[in-house]
Amino acid sequence: MRYSKLFGKTIKSVSSQLQIPSHRLLIQGGFIRESVAGRYFYLPLGMRVKNKVIAVIREEMDRAGAMEMVSPVLHPLELWQETNRDNAGNFGLTQVEDRRGARFALGGTAEEMFVDMVRKFSVSYKELPFNIYQFSQKFRDELRARGGLLRAREFTMKDAYSFDRDEDAFVETYRQMTETYTRIFHRLGLRVDVVPADNGYIGGEYSHEFIVESEAGESRYLVSEDGTYCAHQDVATLKLEAANPGEVEKPLQVIEQPAWVKTIADMARHYGLPKSHFLKNVAYKNIETGQIIIATIRGDLDVNKAKLENVVGAIEQLEEASASDLARLGTQPGYVPSWGLKGVHTVGDLSLKTVTNFTGGQKTERTDTINVNYGRDFTCDHLADIALAQPGHLTPDGRSRLVEKQGIEVGHIFQLGYHYSTKMEGATYTDQDGRQKPYHMGCYGIGIGRTLQAIIESHHDERGIIWPAGVAPYHVHLINLNRAEDAEALYRRLQEAGIDVLYDDREGVSAGAKFTDADLIGCPVRLVISKRSGDQVEWKERDATQPELLSVEDVFKRLETRYL
Amino acid sequence: MRYSKLFGKTIKSVSSQLQIPSHRLLIQGGFIRESVAGRYFYLPLGMRVKNKVIAVIREEMDRAGAMEMVSPVLHPLELWQETNRDNAGNFGLTQVEDRRGARFALGGTAEEMFVDMVRKFSVSYKELPFNIYQFSQKFRDELRARGGLLRAREFTMKDAYSFDRDEDAFVETYRQMTETYTRIFHRLGLRVDVVPADNGYIGGEYSHEFIVESEAGESRYLVSEDGTYCAHQDVATLKLEAANPGEVEKPLQVIEQPAWVKTIADMARHYGLPKSHFLKNVAYKNIETGQIIIATIRGDLDVNKAKLENVVGAIEQLEEASASDLARLGTQPGYVPSWGLKGVHTVGDLSLKTVTNFTGGQKTERTDTINVNYGRDFTCDHLADIALAQPGHLTPDGRSRLVEKQGIEVGHIFQLGYHYSTKMEGATYTDQDGRQKPYHMGCYGIGIGRTLQAIIESHHDERGIIWPAGVAPYHVHLINLNRAEDAEALYRRLQEAGIDVLYDDREGVSAGAKFTDADLIGCPVRLVISKRSGDQVEWKERDATQPELLSVEDVFKRLETRYL
Repeated sequence: MRYSKLFGKTIKSVSSQLQIPSHRLLIQGGFIRESVAGRYFYLPLGMRVKNKVIAVIREEMDRAGAMEMVSPVLHPLELWQETNRDNAGNFGLTQVEDRRGARFALGGTAEEMFVDMVRKFSVSYKELPFNIYQFSQKFRDELRARGGLLRAREFTMKDAYSFDRDEDAFVETYRQMTETYTRIFHRLGLRVDVVPADNGYIGGEYSHEFIVESEAGESRYLVSEDGTYCAHQDVATLKLEAANPGEVEKPLQVIEQPAWVKTIADMARHYGLPKSHFLKNVAYKNIETGQIIIATIRGDLDVNKAKLENVVGAIEQLEEASASDLARLGTQPGYVPSWGLKGVHTVGDLSLKTVTNFTGGQKTERTDTINVNYGRDFTCDHLADIALAQPGHLTPDGRSRLVEKQGIEVGHIFQLGYHYSTKMEGATYTDQDGRQKPYHMGCYGIGIGRTLQAIIESHHDERGIIWPAGVAPYHVHLINLNRAEDAEALYRRLQEAGIDVLYDDREGVSAGAKFTDADLIGCPVRLVISKRSGDQVEWKERDATQPELLSVEDVFKRLETRYL
Repeated sequence: MRYSKLFGKTIKSVSSQLQIPSHRLLIQGGFIRESVAGRYFYLPLGMRVKNKVIAVIREEMDRAGAMEMVSPVLHPLELWQETNRDNAGNFGLTQVEDRRGARFALGGTAEEMFVDMVRKFSVSYKELPFNIYQFSQKFRDELRARGGLLRAREFTMKDAYSFDRDEDAFVETYRQMTETYTRIFHRLGLRVDVVPADNGYIGGEYSHEFIVESEAGESRYLVSEDGTYCAHQDVATLKLEAANPGEVEKPLQVIEQPAWVKTIADMARHYGLPKSHFLKNVAYKNIETGQIIIATIRGDLDVNKAKLENVVGAIEQLEEASASDLARLGTQPGYVPSWGLKGVHTVGDLSLKTVTNFTGGQKTERTDTINVNYGRDFTCDHLADIALAQPGHLTPDGRSRLVEKQGIEVGHIFQLGYHYSTKMEGATYTDQDGRQKPYHMGCYGIGIGRTLQAIIESHHDERGIIWPAGVAPYHVHLINLNRAEDAEALYRRLQEAGIDVLYDDREGVSAGAKFTDADLIGCPVRLVISKRSGDQVEWKERDATQPELLSVEDVFKRLETRYL
């Protein structure tokens, strides 16, 4: 490809708002361009990388015996209603109506579609297990798009769906997909952590995120200092130690409290006790049903919304209640009680059992309650683990402390179990005994754009991208410096040899500008033909500091060994 | 691939409503499956074919120097408003609103998107010409989906957009794309007619459809018996001869007419004159503006709606007026006058100048007008060619007669000229003289599903599909008849040799059923290992009548010559 004819050239300067290096490099290098916020064009350079990423994934999925297919992008809304996923408000499902009044969802994931398709066939146990996948455009009506391809409103995803006879058979499928994913990311030059995570909106009982550690990522996960524990923040657990072991329960009492004592921090100061001795109450609202949920937890801990949503069965449906929500219940921010409100749902954290004689829970402007004991003075509708694990907390086994990591979720695999096959009618196979049984499912996603951007996040320096060879837009970036005839000849020879080559043939562009562009674009090998290179060719690898002079024959020998 | 493990097997019988062979074979062979009307899953077998079709198109587009990229599927609606294409009612543009209130169109074509992307860059004349293309999901809210992938509501399209300095430069791009398309369809095993067609909704001045002749297709086009003329029905012209040369104009007269005389046929009978001597008036309504258009034409001709839409500048916006539309104007079906209605737009066909002394044009239940002459007694707001060319008509040069053909539009290429670059602000390049000039554009579409189905329409027999080797889902269909061990060994060896092989390894399925499935699926070569084949292998090509016995070595020799 002649750089002079390439559509989508490098850009000299980009908005200072692009703070994530990979995002900036994608824009500046001419790989992608924004249409409107969260929606991107892949330009020709970016498309070449995207196609190479897709090719690697396809190859590994096929090697694992999965079969590629593709579903429509518009999903009949009835299917989402069958599983009640049409009303998970925070998820951002966009709906469309056609001119005959039929309603569709713009799919962000395709469990219902694939089950609906499979149930159109009569599947026999002999055909199980099978795993079918697609590459297709997905949509999420994100309230806040950010970081380029990291959180986009429209993106390409590889999503796979597996069908097994039962959990035993599924475990092997899941193991194989874990291996396949590990191999895919390895081939793409990514180091991934495989992190137990929340199934959330997708459903099922367990899942793992594949995370590339990076400050640019939004996935927070916790690992133990001793390396034996790792879990996504949404599901990470901690060991709770008794705050005041041996203390005896005292009688509940309402006492006066100065008006300045408002927060947990104020209480700790006023009473001279650690934060753990106070009750913290956080009110949430279910945005679909309007139901208010009061979560009560030990004052030194925070509520984990994902855990809370699982406990109350309101996945992607909770947000913190507003002052007006609280006013309707006769209370206000800072005064939410642990008990006594009518018409609310209450959830207590397990930590409520680790303290004897709590203070708090029925605050007025001048009073509060002391010697409050869970079980004796109040109970919640649910008592469950809803605590947010944080750095410094004890690991579940109590032997180490948690440390926080942050990264880009490039893949996510889920056990779905019977979540869909029992909710959707007819989602069964004929077993050996002739009976219809629901299939046991899993699903497996890779975000193509995120993966591409994570590669850059992992492989760049201050001058630009350093593409791993397997996904580089071109193997070679050939630069002509005032020796057009020889450069043209080498360009033709490289093409004939089947080497992917980007040829900077521009006239009237300085050597410095050409080198800057080559470093920015990041092809693995830069070749320069100049007066100085004489009969030879200057060879420089993108991640090397010094160029070397090679004969044309040696250039071909090296390229052929590496890229053909 | 083991057939026992393939998802999406053949189906014994399908609905008798599937009358188009290619549609039936796609469903029955397990290549595609309907989600809801007009929206299809590609199953694993169909996906393999689809990917091969895409690979051929990509290879040829790249060979022509075009660059692949991809745009978002959701197009900001403002862009369609810039070109006024958001309100072409018959086109079926689906709109979506996100939860921040931003409005989008589900793209059926992407001219605005590509122009919007290109105008974000400052393009220099040095970069022109360039041609950028994508494969992406397209949407048309068809009132009537039909024929499987032939007219679907959601489909994959390859759409390309070229940018040139001017019409002179563009002519070469257009010629090159014509050649590229011809090569693509040839490689896909399709015989295509390249047919001048209407630009319609896309805009621009001329276009060509690539049509595979087939009864299953919806494109009607006319060719001359002498082979020198060919044009799509929408644009085909005809030579009009004077109906009554030498006749002298007589005075206009209102005469009595029996009540039974209603239609042109009745008039011809009553007056004993050919149909050409009567005025035919057809009322249309612009579905966007409500405007009524009266089209007046010689009684032996029909109105060509596409031509009429071009004349009045209402592309994809006209439908025949209803009785209530006519009632509002004070008239009714059968009595629409050629002149005298207030508030309507009138268009006369050129044929009005070929008859002296028309009858008709002001009919009441008991009277009509005779000796009506265009120009003397009435004129229309426009006089233009709005006649539908039909079989038997004279070709434009008058030397031959028109014959009708019917086929599947697999591709369509368009000169767009300055249609978009003048309507959209900033759609310019910097020319050598430093001035900003609008670029001259073309666009080039191929419907992937239609093409795939047209291949079947052209290559099948009563037993099933006969895939051309280049797009066959597998090269070889290997059948085991009770010699599993030998068949397994051959299966492994074929895979190791890099041959795409579908291996029917099913137990308990009869030889007859396996042969039937192989014929239905249509891989180019069927290999059978049975007691009868002994040390050898039965080789049968899908389009041959007799099998032959070959040694294993000869099987590999033949396969390697053909497929590797």
